[in-house]
Amino acid sequence: MRIEINQKLLAAHTNIVQKAISSRTTLQILDGILLKTVDGKLKLTATDLEIGIESYVDCNIIEEGSIVVNSRIFGDIVKRLPDSTVNISVVDSNINIKCENSEFNIKGSLAFEYPELPLVINQNTFKVPKDLLKSAIRQTIFATTQDETRPILTGVLLEIEEGLGSFVALDGYRLALRSIPIETKENIKIVIPGRVLGELSKILDDTDEEITITVAPNHIIFDLGDTKVSSRLLEGQFINYKDIIRKDHKTSVRVDKKALQDSLERASLLAKEEKANLVRLSIRDDQITIKSNTEIGDVNEQVFCHKDGDDLNIAFNFRYIIEGIKVIDSEEIDLFFMGELNPCIINPTDEENYTYLVLPVRIAKQEDY
Amino acid sequence: MRIEINQKLLAAHTNIVQKAISSRTTLQILDGILLKTVDGKLKLTATDLEIGIESYVDCNIIEEGSIVVNSRIFGDIVKRLPDSTVNISVVDSNINIKCENSEFNIKGSLAFEYPELPLVINQNTFKVPKDLLKSAIRQTIFATTQDETRPILTGVLLEIEEGLGSFVALDGYRLALRSIPIETKENIKIVIPGRVLGELSKILDDTDEEITITVAPNHIIFDLGDTKVSSRLLEGQFINYKDIIRKDHKTSVRVDKKALQDSLERASLLAKEEKANLVRLSIRDDQITIKSNTEIGDVNEQVFCHKDGDDLNIAFNFRYIIEGIKVIDSEEIDLFFMGELNPCIINPTDEENYTYLVLPVRIAKQEDY
Repeated sequence: MRIEINQKLLAAHTNIVQKAISSRTTLQILDGILLKTVDGKLKLTATDLEIGIESYVDCNIIEEGSIVVNSRIFGDIVKRLPDSTVNISVVDSNINIKCENSEFNIKGSLAFEYPELPLVINQNTFKVPKDLLKSAIRQTIFATTQDETRPILTGVLLEIEEGLGSFVALDGYRLALRSIPIETKENIKIVIPGRVLGELSKILDDTDEEITITVAPNHIIFDLGDTKVSSRLLEGQFINYKDIIRKDHKTSVRVDKKALQDSLERASLLAKEEKANLVRLSIRDDQITIKSNTEIGDVNEQVFCHKDGDDLNIAFNFRYIIEGIKVIDSEEIDLFFMGELNPCIINPTDEENYTYLVLPVRIAKQEDY
Repeated sequence: MRIEINQKLLAAHTNIVQKAISSRTTLQILDGILLKTVDGKLKLTATDLEIGIESYVDCNIIEEGSIVVNSRIFGDIVKRLPDSTVNISVVDSNINIKCENSEFNIKGSLAFEYPELPLVINQNTFKVPKDLLKSAIRQTIFATTQDETRPILTGVLLEIEEGLGSFVALDGYRLALRSIPIETKENIKIVIPGRVLGELSKILDDTDEEITITVAPNHIIFDLGDTKVSSRLLEGQFINYKDIIRKDHKTSVRVDKKALQDSLERASLLAKEEKANLVRLSIRDDQITIKSNTEIGDVNEQVFCHKDGDDLNIAFNFRYIIEGIKVIDSEEIDLFFMGELNPCIINPTDEENYTYLVLPVRIAKQEDY
């Protein structure tokens, strides 16, 4: 292999595919990036066997070929080379990198040892604008579980029915649901690993440019043009989330999102000093009182609101309620309650596309409010 | 105690005094900040018994008093309060903090338990512009040792003689010396803990405004106006650095600072993969060749220079040579060599005020270059 390639371009695309490298890999070859000349471009590939990223970079090919090079070392070198043309040539398993007055010789591995990424042809394909996909990921991914013993819940469900795509994540304590319009030929119901969506989100910019998504029985491919991100899908039955979201509330509250979030965050400063992470909400008339009592001291926050329905005392793990409110972009939010032992549902005001549901914590004595 | 105080001001000054809090303290009271009404202001004090910071904040005093409050919790609360007037009142050892619709009650400790900061009167006092002091700290502090078994070398020597103040740090592998003009009545020779200078540097802005420094036999006080930073001095004899800086060089090299630094940093990408951290410099004609050979591969960097004197092969721990070059601000630097086994001296071109000296690493075979 012998190529000439622009340093800035090579560094940018190396940085993209590096997101597929796992620090926990046990296969040494997976620490590497596969460089290969394909269709007049340099193709960079990295994978940890769950997520795979390949990226095509314009270059001048003098001799076709391929090599696997350690991702961290290659990335560090390329990033620090001068902003100029980089000459890469491979002899046997040695890679030579020249740029202006710098020359590196690095030991690589032969390309045939590198695993193939899944190839998906003629499957269900649809398009989604980058900014909508990015926002759907941001509003749901935090509600996946980190608990590896419940693998299906480490992923985000994507269910597409009749032009509506629903992204759903839940961990047994809260549920986040975001809907965006997606046109498909067939209905789709798949679970995408949370880690893959997190890495994908980092390389999506906030434009309405569309990306192409292809779904096969075991895989999904996000095609961003120069870059393709592929992932295996999680196997198993996702919880029937629709049954969880009930509508028979007894108390509804409309409140300024920032005011409530700020007050909850201040109350959590004391709550986080203790394991239970408990904040108590007392909703009376047009006021939410937020309290937390700990050994260090106590806090009392008042937030003005519009309330309909019954007065209510209810307690939450502050982390679960704050995380759901934080990702909402509207100025006002609506909170719906079905009593102190039932979940609270949070929606942006005047927006049907986001629902957050959070379970309360049961408090022994009502006098504690 | 009862005061009214601006939230932004209180948060800024709390952040300043927090720099004196040590995470390694064993005395519980030293996790606290002392709040005390003094001369119509609120005085905040924090100390770990080595460094002490006190800061005066404008406020409206309704009732005089004092209290000690946990630094982290107080800092977190104050930072997150609304941008408005904060009411602080103390009853017994309880502190009540109110701001708009937020109210905190925190358990504090009584002020008499808090240690006194050193009081220094009628001692040797002089003035230094903030930006010069900040730059002198930046150019020397990194060369102090982290090795607690050589406590005197964890500090920076400040020697003032005949209008010239020399800041000196060394760790047995390299020495950094920065001189700035300082007028004093008497000569001074003290060693200031590196950690104190590091924290001081964070609160110095880059202006030529002067601060007042007072030196007593065991202490130094930096008076920034609203804020005073005091420190104990390190005891012991500092190495006679003047004997180390020799001038009988056999090779001198003038080189572009950024070009040399970039090449050394690229060469170090491979060198850092091995324990020795070794880069080899070969100086021939008007060229410096930098090499590093490791198991992963090798690198060869060429940097153009102007050389006078003998050709030379010499090796360094890349970290020591890069750190000294990095802090120099001039476009070009001069390197002076006295053979492969003697230190290299680095100066900014046309500037007498900075000297960096770094020891080479002895290489067994000259053929290795």
